[in-house]
Amino acid sequence: MKQLSESVVQTVVRPRPQESHKGTFGRVLIVGGNAQFGGAAIMAASAAVYAGAGLVTVATDPVNRSALHARLPEAMIVPFNDRQALKAALAAATVIVIGPGLGTDEAALAILQTTLGGITPAQTLILDGSAITLVAEHQLPVEFQNVVWTPHQMEWQRLSGLAVKEQTVAANTKAAAAIAGTVIVKAHRTQIFSPTASYENTTGSAAMATGGSGDTLTGILAAFIAQFGYVDQTVCAAVYAHSAIADGLAATNYVVLPSMVIAALPHYMQRIAASGAQA
Amino acid sequence: MKQLSESVVQTVVRPRPQESHKGTFGRVLIVGGNAQFGGAAIMAASAAVYAGAGLVTVATDPVNRSALHARLPEAMIVPFNDRQALKAALAAATVIVIGPGLGTDEAALAILQTTLGGITPAQTLILDGSAITLVAEHQLPVEFQNVVWTPHQMEWQRLSGLAVKEQTVAANTKAAAAIAGTVIVKAHRTQIFSPTASYENTTGSAAMATGGSGDTLTGILAAFIAQFGYVDQTVCAAVYAHSAIADGLAATNYVVLPSMVIAALPHYMQRIAASGAQA
Amino acid sequence: MKQLSESVVQTVVRPRPQESHKGTFGRVLIVGGNAQFGGAAIMAASAAVYAGAGLVTVATDPVNRSALHARLPEAMIVPFNDRQALKAALAAATVIVIGPGLGTDEAALAILQTTLGGITPAQTLILDGSAITLVAEHQLPVEFQNVVWTPHQMEWQRLSGLAVKEQTVAANTKAAAAIAGTVIVKAHRTQIFSPTASYENTTGSAAMATGGSGDTLTGILAAFIAQFGYVDQTVCAAVYAHSAIADGLAATNYVVLPSMVIAALPHYMQRIAASGAQA
Amino acid sequence: MKQLSESVVQTVVRPRPQESHKGTFGRVLIVGGNAQFGGAAIMAASAAVYAGAGLVTVATDPVNRSALHARLPEAMIVPFNDRQALKAALAAATVIVIGPGLGTDEAALAILQTTLGGITPAQTLILDGSAITLVAEHQLPVEFQNVVWTPHQMEWQRLSGLAVKEQTVAANTKAAAAIAGTVIVKAHRTQIFSPTASYENTTGSAAMATGGSGDTLTGILAAFIAQFGYVDQTVCAAVYAHSAIADGLAATNYVVLPSMVIAALPHYMQRIAASGAQA
Repeated sequence: MKQLSESVVQTVVRPRPQESHKGTFGRVLIVGGNAQFGGAAIMAASAAVYAGAGLVTVATDPVNRSALHARLPEAMIVPFNDRQALKAALAAATVIVIGPGLGTDEAALAILQTTLGGITPAQTLILDGSAITLVAEHQLPVEFQNVVWTPHQMEWQRLSGLAVKEQTVAANTKAAAAIAGTVIVKAHRTQIFSPTASYENTTGSAAMATGGSGDTLTGILAAFIAQFGYVDQTVCAAVYAHSAIADGLAATNYVVLPSMVIAALPHYMQRIAASGAQA
Repeated sequence: MKQLSESVVQTVVRPRPQESHKGTFGRVLIVGGNAQFGGAAIMAASAAVYAGAGLVTVATDPVNRSALHARLPEAMIVPFNDRQALKAALAAATVIVIGPGLGTDEAALAILQTTLGGITPAQTLILDGSAITLVAEHQLPVEFQNVVWTPHQMEWQRLSGLAVKEQTVAANTKAAAAIAGTVIVKAHRTQIFSPTASYENTTGSAAMATGGSGDTLTGILAAFIAQFGYVDQTVCAAVYAHSAIADGLAATNYVVLPSMVIAALPHYMQRIAASGAQA
Repeated sequence: MKQLSESVVQTVVRPRPQESHKGTFGRVLIVGGNAQFGGAAIMAASAAVYAGAGLVTVATDPVNRSALHARLPEAMIVPFNDRQALKAALAAATVIVIGPGLGTDEAALAILQTTLGGITPAQTLILDGSAITLVAEHQLPVEFQNVVWTPHQMEWQRLSGLAVKEQTVAANTKAAAAIAGTVIVKAHRTQIFSPTASYENTTGSAAMATGGSGDTLTGILAAFIAQFGYVDQTVCAAVYAHSAIADGLAATNYVVLPSMVIAALPHYMQRIAASGAQA
Repeated sequence: MKQLSESVVQTVVRPRPQESHKGTFGRVLIVGGNAQFGGAAIMAASAAVYAGAGLVTVATDPVNRSALHARLPEAMIVPFNDRQALKAALAAATVIVIGPGLGTDEAALAILQTTLGGITPAQTLILDGSAITLVAEHQLPVEFQNVVWTPHQMEWQRLSGLAVKEQTVAANTKAAAAIAGTVIVKAHRTQIFSPTASYENTTGSAAMATGGSGDTLTGILAAFIAQFGYVDQTVCAAVYAHSAIADGLAATNYVVLPSMVIAALPHYMQRIAASGAQA
């Protein structure tokens, strides 16, 4: 496995082209946030906005509207159980995330199926959290090219059939190869398996072990792909950046909350872009 | 075209008269924010408050109430589909903005028509976002004197009939002359066409290319006109200030979000007013 | 008229007694905030909490609940049109504010009447904003001992019958003497008329001329009376402190918003208490 | 009584094990927050998240949803009067808090009874605020091993039968011995009575005497037990840390609000963990 370093972020996060507009930096759709887990969608959307996605829409339970806009007026909102509205939002997006706080009930399954049915080859789909569990449980076919999976170890067990103890590099590599797209197995040292290579993250600490860390990574990943394209380097840069920011914050914070990482994103990315531009 | 510089802001943003009260600094009404795009109205209203408007009311979908007040208790709220309440709010305002997050459906059209029907010559009307699209689509007559339009390039295409590629200075000048009031064509280098002159902004960068930037400019513009009157200099100062603040923030932020620009407004304006007072 | 100086705040805001609990610092009830003006009640309550009131309850339209708690979880809430709940809240309070964002409709009048009917001699009542207008319009008797009125010049006109131009010190003094309690006439230089003396504030600037400044003063006043008792000095200290904080903020802010003043209250009060303790 | 010092926090708050995930740091459930006192549950949950609990769920009145998520997207929410949802949340938790803002009506009693009926020996239960009042009023049996009570002096009077004036160390010790688990009697100098020892806090000041201080302590306590286990030292560390943070803030704040203490938790804990690691 290749070991990630800051250079992958420097390669990806470059100064923005001046002749551009918000559409240049992509349209992210986050599908998630039921009545119990609304915060997950809010955190993923916040991370996407602060990581530079041009436009971010959240398809969610309408009960999450006030909190979403109170934290993030920059986002737009559609009710996720309005099938027509969801389809329209899917069609308008360049990167779609499904899963943060989606839950695993019948309504969630229906939303996932609508989403899977609305993806086109030009779009990138990120499957996260309960969407992974639902795909595994219901054996849903996911056969797009541009797909990223972001399971933690238990979700990876459900998707791959590998018990957490069996999740060696060799076993993970083999299991990931059987699945479309890229798999990010989140752990103390997160591993990334793309169709052509595998990578191990070198940053991150136990200070990040708190609810919402995964949702935050997913939002960063969506924004990075929206801006920099779906290639291995982009995925690696998102994983590295998320943990590197948290490591910086962990120097003065016993626990690093998602809202701290989100607030720090624009500074981190600008520091990287400026240092890369000088190099 | 005249090139804008900081001196236009120094000319406009002067120390406040001490014998004054909140009414001295104008009453801004923001009409916008449907159930999908409520954040746009929140950002425009926030910009208006932080840019110094004396009183700010938001006529919006009531679903946006909690988020608006959670972010901005300084604003007041009326339900935009309550025709009598909207009319009363229109009558009380000195500057009216219509468009941020208004949408383009039938309800939006009705609200726009009520608004256009309620403007008096002493008021200034700012047409933004979907209000421009609606005016263009429905060929609504807008023949007031004190009008500012704030289209981005696609909206300008709809309003002027000029495709984005055809939007040269000469063509824009000619098209703007056929429209009442002042037109601000938002682009990498924003252009301003008043009835008597044209101007090009010299600030701004790709860091601002994110959802809500336009809403923020609109709010600043409304507050500036409410305080400093509807003249070319005021419009130019608002455009310049918005981008200049963002440029300052872009030194340390890869993406400059509306909420960052809004928070920085009182400091920027005070710096300008103090430096102008010394000059 | 006596001119106020920082010494009045130093006399009032003293280090807290260590043998104390939250009840020691009073129970403030804010009655206000209808569906249009909810922010006013939120700002008044926030000022009361940040100025040190032991417990703060807001009797308001329930539509303001989410925004209130999103900004200020420290406050409690009761629905202001639930007469029994309002009466219970009134009975539990030591200082009652009525008026911020209350409005002037029939519902507001009923709430005002319930409030006036529930005040006991040991409590202090602060009448603000639309409550003053309602008292003037409906000639409601207000004959308690511990009463403070906080009209701006137009509200003072309604209450006293003096047109703004006629509001000289002599005329104000005479008019205030005919009214129970203390009158604070808010203007560029705010005047205070107690039953035994009159005072003029020496702080404050046009930077404070923005929606919500009055609500903020009212909240500070309530908290100061709750902690330091209803005497002239307490009222003077609240007026002075509000403007002095704003003056400090105005050095770097073109407009000083209520939320800025509120956030600065604990620091200002501690600086005063520490300097007073050393003197 | 043993006098607490910073060393107890250093003993408890140690650098996190690197091979860990959010489950390692416990699952806290906060049961509380009715329509009047929603802020209490929000503050307790915020303190739990910022003090490092791995996952935090709030069982509350759904009217508190928007404010909770607007402040704390990191938390999850279940409606506390949905008995099945509450039972499921109880079963999933490692530490359960009941009481902050729960109220004392019939609905509150039913929720308390469901909660008491759902506790297993492996879980720790913290009884706070109105839950203590309800237990005392209704003589509810609470006979679990891992229980912490956090009464203020009036609640302790209701639970123990000791009038506030009678609450001497000797009397408190005797009364606490008759009650299961650990009792924290909150006062100017908070006392802790475990089954085997008693402790007196040495930090804290009148600046903390404001609504929500108790809810904040409860949240810290829950997070500490979730991470460090239910032993005397953990309880003592939570009490000491809460007041020590407030003492630090009181140097520059006349009143120390819960939101200030909450925001300071990650820094304080990291400073302690780093200093302890070096020792």
